[in-house]
Amino acid sequence: MKIESVDFFYLSMPEVLDIGDGSQDSVLVRVRAGGKEGWGECEASPLTTIAAYIAPMSHSACKPVSHSVVGMPLDTVMDIRNISAMVHQHSFDLLQADHTLSGIDIALWDLLGKHKEEPIYQLLGYKKAYPKLPYASQLFGDTPELTYEKAKASRLAGYQATKFGWGPIGKADAETDAMHFRAAREGLGVEHYLMVDIGTVWNEDASRAKKCLQSLKEVNVYWLEEPFTNMALGPYKTLAEASPKVPLAAGEGCNNYVQAAAMLDYAGLKYIQIDTGRIGGITAAKRVADEATRKGITYVNHTFTSHLALSASIQPFAGLENDRICEYPVEPKSLALEMTIEKILPDQSGQIILPEQPGLGLTIDTEAMKKYLVEAEIRINGKTYYQTPAF
Amino acid sequence: MKIESVDFFYLSMPEVLDIGDGSQDSVLVRVRAGGKEGWGECEASPLTTIAAYIAPMSHSACKPVSHSVVGMPLDTVMDIRNISAMVHQHSFDLLQADHTLSGIDIALWDLLGKHKEEPIYQLLGYKKAYPKLPYASQLFGDTPELTYEKAKASRLAGYQATKFGWGPIGKADAETDAMHFRAAREGLGVEHYLMVDIGTVWNEDASRAKKCLQSLKEVNVYWLEEPFTNMALGPYKTLAEASPKVPLAAGEGCNNYVQAAAMLDYAGLKYIQIDTGRIGGITAAKRVADEATRKGITYVNHTFTSHLALSASIQPFAGLENDRICEYPVEPKSLALEMTIEKILPDQSGQIILPEQPGLGLTIDTEAMKKYLVEAEIRINGKTYYQTPAF
Repeated sequence: MKIESVDFFYLSMPEVLDIGDGSQDSVLVRVRAGGKEGWGECEASPLTTIAAYIAPMSHSACKPVSHSVVGMPLDTVMDIRNISAMVHQHSFDLLQADHTLSGIDIALWDLLGKHKEEPIYQLLGYKKAYPKLPYASQLFGDTPELTYEKAKASRLAGYQATKFGWGPIGKADAETDAMHFRAAREGLGVEHYLMVDIGTVWNEDASRAKKCLQSLKEVNVYWLEEPFTNMALGPYKTLAEASPKVPLAAGEGCNNYVQAAAMLDYAGLKYIQIDTGRIGGITAAKRVADEATRKGITYVNHTFTSHLALSASIQPFAGLENDRICEYPVEPKSLALEMTIEKILPDQSGQIILPEQPGLGLTIDTEAMKKYLVEAEIRINGKTYYQTPAF
Repeated sequence: MKIESVDFFYLSMPEVLDIGDGSQDSVLVRVRAGGKEGWGECEASPLTTIAAYIAPMSHSACKPVSHSVVGMPLDTVMDIRNISAMVHQHSFDLLQADHTLSGIDIALWDLLGKHKEEPIYQLLGYKKAYPKLPYASQLFGDTPELTYEKAKASRLAGYQATKFGWGPIGKADAETDAMHFRAAREGLGVEHYLMVDIGTVWNEDASRAKKCLQSLKEVNVYWLEEPFTNMALGPYKTLAEASPKVPLAAGEGCNNYVQAAAMLDYAGLKYIQIDTGRIGGITAAKRVADEATRKGITYVNHTFTSHLALSASIQPFAGLENDRICEYPVEPKSLALEMTIEKILPDQSGQIILPEQPGLGLTIDTEAMKKYLVEAEIRINGKTYYQTPAF
């Protein structure tokens, strides 16, 4: 079959708040071929991502992403890999291209899975999707007291692992940070896995980070996530060497395979965290999972939005039995929650498992999405290049 | 003073060809403050770059670039550095942001230079702008015969160094490539510096690259540029170790300081090539120049477009006496040529030197630019977010 159409849907909550919650808007991508459709989601600025799909060509290596997609054959896994390669060849000077590719690539895997009646993890060569232990991923409270309350609620909700991130952390001094860490541990209890996400606020400052190592050790943190700017290999390595008992996790900011490979090689990570909605989709993410396995670094998904994004982000490491931990969004906005009719929910043992249905195994609730649809229009020299499509 | 306005102008040739010539369109940025204006240029997809400036906020780390610019103070060099830091803090999940920042940052330096009546290189702390030896930067001919003719013309035009890149190279077999290398050397003569630019077409394939090492050595190549995808540290290092007599150059694809630092640390480069129109402007480029100097790696500008871009790209290493070579665009389209009233031309000794006038030292020819202006409009939910401004 040939790719007949690619449509971008810009969705948004009525109000977007200035908080570290990426579930407030979304770019949904629908690809149609051979009488079927596949869906994907970009974890990216919607308008900018759409612009990269339709922007007029600047030169041979700065073409719109659309150049490498519509009309291309889609019958095999190699066809999807070929589209990734084409986008990189024809658009490598278009910085946003990998974020645009991400949603398209996910939709292509979903579509091919539906066509072949197989879940994506099987197309990727895995025999089985192993259960994953979800960690409840949420923002720190504005005060240590609120962090304590959120931690307690997470434990009572049945989670065995919880990550706190962003919000006030890293913005005041190390002692304020430590109060949040202790509040989180107190609310969760001693057995619970506790992860801490700095959200890159220390930029490249390894000495600021080192001031938190003692308090992180005291609360027995499972990992310390994104202390620095993505790709700041020097500070990462410095901190990794200073903190053998505080394992480092990062990688969500990588927007292609070679960046993730650099992080695997030189950042001193114990965990590599990949968002299929940013790295170029499932194709690039699976390459990272393979390379991480070769290097003995644990692969973890990065997911803070919908269950569509969750399924897409788990597929690349579904078959890695030992890479058990998985990020699970517990406080997404209604837009993200309502996106799929089916949900991926923890079972009685507190674990989650991918759907066995073809593709991503989830159905988009287009009716529910209509109220979030943003009407956008891009015109160049009097010609319409983009207009919000109909569901 | 405070930043009063930032305007983006999308310029394009009437026809954009599918060739490796980045001078076919442009994004000019005009910043106004304190009764003066500064200009910058992004080496980037115009529509996508504009979208990143005005896109609605997605979350706290995915804000439009405009959030961190308009209304900010602009009195000192630190104010410009602060704007870079703000953009990274508020927009690090907006992939295109650094390309958008690039033109703004250049315009801010131009404006501050005009305000303080100093050329930018002095604001950067250099006492003197040393003359640079321009290499004529051009595309390979479609056949070895045409490459020979272009090489001969470059020598006769008085250049002492010439780089050929892109076009047919790396797309057929190693023997075809070698024919182009030999034709270039023959046309240039034995004394001439010859550089070869692969334009990343070997992706991550070090073994394909190795097949060309012998022929590159035979023509005494001054450097081999961008054999691989930007940030593919593994293949770069493999090739560098295999080819001590073929020095490697790369870096134009870096869109921030930390990526360039990773290339300096791990790619085995002899030359780091930075485009201020991509890396986040003069601020980020100067940091790279400082770090390259510490590491004993030679800094070179990447410039394939206008003399505005040329001035902006030379400022960061203007005061480095030993980093003598500079890229010089010799076949830009009329859009790029007509952009500035003054030009930066080789003197009788074949060298070029930065203007001593304040800022970038060049005047935008807004009258000439009007015929290239593209009318673009972006509307979201009935509201206009972007409309082509007037010069």
